[in-house]
Amino acid sequence: MNYKDYIAIIEDFPVKGISFKDITPLMQNGEAFKKACLEISEFAKKVKAQVIVGPESRGFIFGCPVANQLELGFVPVRKPGKLPREEIKVEYNLEYGKGELCMHADAIKKGDKVLVIDDLLATGGTAKASIDLVEKLGGEVVGCAFLIELTGLNGRDLLKGYEVFSLINYEF
Amino acid sequence: MNYKDYIAIIEDFPVKGISFKDITPLMQNGEAFKKACLEISEFAKKVKAQVIVGPESRGFIFGCPVANQLELGFVPVRKPGKLPREEIKVEYNLEYGKGELCMHADAIKKGDKVLVIDDLLATGGTAKASIDLVEKLGGEVVGCAFLIELTGLNGRDLLKGYEVFSLINYEF
Repeated sequence: MNYKDYIAIIEDFPVKGISFKDITPLMQNGEAFKKACLEISEFAKKVKAQVIVGPESRGFIFGCPVANQLELGFVPVRKPGKLPREEIKVEYNLEYGKGELCMHADAIKKGDKVLVIDDLLATGGTAKASIDLVEKLGGEVVGCAFLIELTGLNGRDLLKGYEVFSLINYEF
Repeated sequence: MNYKDYIAIIEDFPVKGISFKDITPLMQNGEAFKKACLEISEFAKKVKAQVIVGPESRGFIFGCPVANQLELGFVPVRKPGKLPREEIKVEYNLEYGKGELCMHADAIKKGDKVLVIDDLLATGGTAKASIDLVEKLGGEVVGCAFLIELTGLNGRDLLKGYEVFSLINYEF
């Protein structure tokens, strides 16, 4: 299956100069959506993941089906103000300025083998923040999986030392 | 399985007077998470759903696994500014003031049988807005499914005429 057939490219969205990769055509195709999640599940098995972690909200789109396919738990990484119980936070770099991401303090147990899943690897900031949250709680990140990787943005450099898996590559 | 064992109740979150139902313990338990999604999938089969629709971001948590289990497409309902292609919008009532929800204009085909999935049925505003979006595009809503229903808020009244399924009930 050529997954690129199910990605729509929208130039200058959300701002001028960005070539936006729209994953909704893939999600709308039941076969393509399932096949993509199954391939990520295969990677999850290979790296022996015990917990799936995904940042809101597009990390939920692939992370939750993979967690279900493998009967693993799913831990959401959320923006501030969303999680109701004791949480930990990390700062990360946005295009302009800084953002914060949060995880429940009891979400990961020491030694848990964790796979981080998101839709897109660009500069790697969100994935790295998710890794930092997991490691703060004593978890072991065994890999990061993405539907799409923008290879020209060198996100893998920021994730050096972690196994990175992606199903579709574009330069930008 | 008593799903309530996996829901944490947090009083006065996010504001005083609200008894927040935290679904993250359920998501973190691979068996409970999968079982809940499978039960929603059974309902989806019963109503002969052909497309799953879910509002961001917690509608993704249950909607995407169900779509995968049944090899159906998933259509996201999103807040303004997130969808890159031609979209339709509906207004809906928030606790204070109004909000807007959006769907890609090509997301639903005339006659598609649609199941709307979200984590929580409270007043029903988000589900009703999702139904309106589907119907604007000529889709037929065959049901609405939720992990949790707050029966005291009478969300079913707003969804009258639609089949409503929920796995866990609380009064408030």
